[in-house]
Amino acid sequence: MKHLFNFHSFPFPAFLLSATGIFALLPSCYGQITDPKATEVWEPEPRVVTPGQGTKPPSDAIILFQGMNFSEWQSVKDSGDVKWYRNSDSSTTVLPGAGDIVTKRAFGDCQLHIEFRTPPVVKGEGQGRGNSGIFLQDRYEVQVLDNYQNRTYSNGQAGSIYKQSIPLVNACRKPGEWQSYDILYTAPRFNADGVLITPAHITVIQNGIVVQLNTEIKGTTEYIGLPKNKSHGKAPIRLQDHGDLVSYRNIWIREL
Amino acid sequence: MKHLFNFHSFPFPAFLLSATGIFALLPSCYGQITDPKATEVWEPEPRVVTPGQGTKPPSDAIILFQGMNFSEWQSVKDSGDVKWYRNSDSSTTVLPGAGDIVTKRAFGDCQLHIEFRTPPVVKGEGQGRGNSGIFLQDRYEVQVLDNYQNRTYSNGQAGSIYKQSIPLVNACRKPGEWQSYDILYTAPRFNADGVLITPAHITVIQNGIVVQLNTEIKGTTEYIGLPKNKSHGKAPIRLQDHGDLVSYRNIWIREL
Amino acid sequence: MKHLFNFHSFPFPAFLLSATGIFALLPSCYGQITDPKATEVWEPEPRVVTPGQGTKPPSDAIILFQGMNFSEWQSVKDSGDVKWYRNSDSSTTVLPGAGDIVTKRAFGDCQLHIEFRTPPVVKGEGQGRGNSGIFLQDRYEVQVLDNYQNRTYSNGQAGSIYKQSIPLVNACRKPGEWQSYDILYTAPRFNADGVLITPAHITVIQNGIVVQLNTEIKGTTEYIGLPKNKSHGKAPIRLQDHGDLVSYRNIWIREL
Amino acid sequence: MKHLFNFHSFPFPAFLLSATGIFALLPSCYGQITDPKATEVWEPEPRVVTPGQGTKPPSDAIILFQGMNFSEWQSVKDSGDVKWYRNSDSSTTVLPGAGDIVTKRAFGDCQLHIEFRTPPVVKGEGQGRGNSGIFLQDRYEVQVLDNYQNRTYSNGQAGSIYKQSIPLVNACRKPGEWQSYDILYTAPRFNADGVLITPAHITVIQNGIVVQLNTEIKGTTEYIGLPKNKSHGKAPIRLQDHGDLVSYRNIWIREL
Repeated sequence: MKHLFNFHSFPFPAFLLSATGIFALLPSCYGQITDPKATEVWEPEPRVVTPGQGTKPPSDAIILFQGMNFSEWQSVKDSGDVKWYRNSDSSTTVLPGAGDIVTKRAFGDCQLHIEFRTPPVVKGEGQGRGNSGIFLQDRYEVQVLDNYQNRTYSNGQAGSIYKQSIPLVNACRKPGEWQSYDILYTAPRFNADGVLITPAHITVIQNGIVVQLNTEIKGTTEYIGLPKNKSHGKAPIRLQDHGDLVSYRNIWIREL
Repeated sequence: MKHLFNFHSFPFPAFLLSATGIFALLPSCYGQITDPKATEVWEPEPRVVTPGQGTKPPSDAIILFQGMNFSEWQSVKDSGDVKWYRNSDSSTTVLPGAGDIVTKRAFGDCQLHIEFRTPPVVKGEGQGRGNSGIFLQDRYEVQVLDNYQNRTYSNGQAGSIYKQSIPLVNACRKPGEWQSYDILYTAPRFNADGVLITPAHITVIQNGIVVQLNTEIKGTTEYIGLPKNKSHGKAPIRLQDHGDLVSYRNIWIREL
Repeated sequence: MKHLFNFHSFPFPAFLLSATGIFALLPSCYGQITDPKATEVWEPEPRVVTPGQGTKPPSDAIILFQGMNFSEWQSVKDSGDVKWYRNSDSSTTVLPGAGDIVTKRAFGDCQLHIEFRTPPVVKGEGQGRGNSGIFLQDRYEVQVLDNYQNRTYSNGQAGSIYKQSIPLVNACRKPGEWQSYDILYTAPRFNADGVLITPAHITVIQNGIVVQLNTEIKGTTEYIGLPKNKSHGKAPIRLQDHGDLVSYRNIWIREL
Repeated sequence: MKHLFNFHSFPFPAFLLSATGIFALLPSCYGQITDPKATEVWEPEPRVVTPGQGTKPPSDAIILFQGMNFSEWQSVKDSGDVKWYRNSDSSTTVLPGAGDIVTKRAFGDCQLHIEFRTPPVVKGEGQGRGNSGIFLQDRYEVQVLDNYQNRTYSNGQAGSIYKQSIPLVNACRKPGEWQSYDILYTAPRFNADGVLITPAHITVIQNGIVVQLNTEIKGTTEYIGLPKNKSHGKAPIRLQDHGDLVSYRNIWIREL
């Protein structure tokens, strides 16, 4: 009987326990689960987020850029106002020489949506065509490049983690067409000695196509040399001025 | 000198090596990388995929359902033709009682896009409102449910891995509105004894909002009882007839 | 020539560049890495740890228990002194009824070594034989049980993450023999809302045999009901008084 | 009442259901789990493995080397017999010039135990002191080196994944002392196009101290240049002849 239930946790009146056939009355969660309710979990209740629609972001997103408003950004050069082009279509274009721009807020784990357009007038080749970049935590670059019929090194293509991870496929649209990155990012964890214990991971969906799938980030995305790993906390999103007329619009972020 | 370079791998003519200042001529990749080309990786070249646009899927996608064509599907009951409703707007609606439907092809690692709509006329509550489901590999369910202002157990909400993993947020649209799931899935790996060595992982983006982030799948998604893990290979995608008039459209899959 | 190197970053004297055959002199890190030094990383230098030998732990370990010294522990019941048995062989044995004991210090990511012995005199069966447990962060239990020729539910065996993860194999020694667990543990990460973003992971090696391989911990290891996930920080190691005469010795921990 | 249980799955006699207080009799797994048995999982039952003791390996291990027996190995050079030294203490020492040796069997996911000794007579420095290596799947090297008071590049130290991952600490014993690696390894997974979908992961415990913790392997461990990733299946374990008198003994492997 010991296998059927535990007397201590189940105080049936004695008359019932002695009745013939009482065990037939016992629901079979004694020994195994037979009631679907047993595996329901009611807490916590996920909070409600209203999904976006078109250019409207999800209700819990921080809008980083929309409608020519640079209030969330500053210039890296002088921590002053952003001097990039403000376009009449609510996008911005890199002002070559003005330098990179960063968000004023710092972020860790996040979902980032960003739309970009490489120049409609094609100029240059390889890395010299429509080059820019999106830096998570100010140091891990998702490459922006015009790779439409433009070969470069595979680990430097659009959708690459720059010089670290080749994209699964080349999902570029034509120059001059708006493209999107949807990025899911978890920040690295360092121990007290500054040693990396849990690397950052990133998933990138370019134009609806997965190009990075929970990719481990090996460290900073260096132009020259190998990735570096130095302990850090939350840090801004950075957009790169690489001298090309790359445009951005509709940038929002959700903290995870 | 030994720290500057290795004679064996670097056959400079002796006269050069003895020349004063020759080391100034050596590019500093001797000892450290100074040339950006050193960290370029050119192979493999990612294959080109033309991104989708609107209802047009990416060029390498297998279209599972679009335009009332059920050629990729069969009924679970009798392995015969699908009897679900064919709607004039190129969607299909569950025919209650007709049973689940499965793809004829089997899949492993994949990216799956699927659009669904819970009934515009709200009926029932909790799990009884707009219930259906999408099964990866015929056994791991991403829940489909009308959770717009409709509370149920958290691990059974829309966007949950059914009875396993609560969605990060409730990202449901209103009943009658079309919604989307973008799913990134890596299949589990079992050893020769049938023991699970690498669990399946899943990322789910509902209406553009991440609700599952590289979630480990614990086993089959059981209505009653705990997840089970039995070795299996590739298997079909399954859509559930749960008795509610849930509609589907624009379903495509990319094998990863 | 543009493919061979970049003039801007490589200021060779012009006379050399114009010389016939100069490119033969260029080390082939231009275009690709040919020098093994290019992929050397010298920083950081891993700190030196003197490995243990026999019962001597690694030099950077915190000795939690050795030689009947309970200074690192306290009783859960009253936060007072530990009342478990002090054995002459430098081990301790659970004093049934005295209750669980916890470390005074709190830990996160760690490597934990612990030796245990189930009672030489076999008494009881199933979960009633030689039962105790080791709780990481005061809430995630690695089961201690005498499973030598003693069947119980698989997810409650020695080496299981209690009621979550079945051990890969049954690696128990005979009752009365000393056994070891070597545990590698990374703590979970919760977001600001208390939602689990990165689950804990654990590797357990029992008597030199891997029984848990980077297993995701699903939440608290409940005797009754499903795992729970509530945000927490560092927390003590806890040893369980389950009423059986289980002994422990030679316990040390390294913070990762 | 609907929230308490489901009539269809619970056929109580009507007279009982109508009786006052009947619900007090229902075990509370209706609505939530109150019985510990509900979360027991009995299948599969982990198979029994007798743990090793001293030099005796676990009962399910394949003994790769013990007692001067090279029957599991062959020379890489000519696929012929191994010509390394056979020592009277049941160890073998690299015969410089004889070349690497590989197992005849191929392996994937595994636990590997291996003991090694760098030469008691110290000669050379940096990578030139007591150098050898253990290659998983014939291409992913765990470095063997005498790093006792011998600095080299961090990503080439003993315990490193060669030129990829710096060990967490330097856990070397003195030259001439036997050391151990306990390695837990899961093989990479490639898709049909040969693209890496799930990278290999490795945990390395050197002399009882974790030096690699579920480290992602980035590709082949190249002496020159960056890691490469080319689809492959099971492959042998390889031990390297790097010209130094490194010894090995007590090598066993368990397939996971």
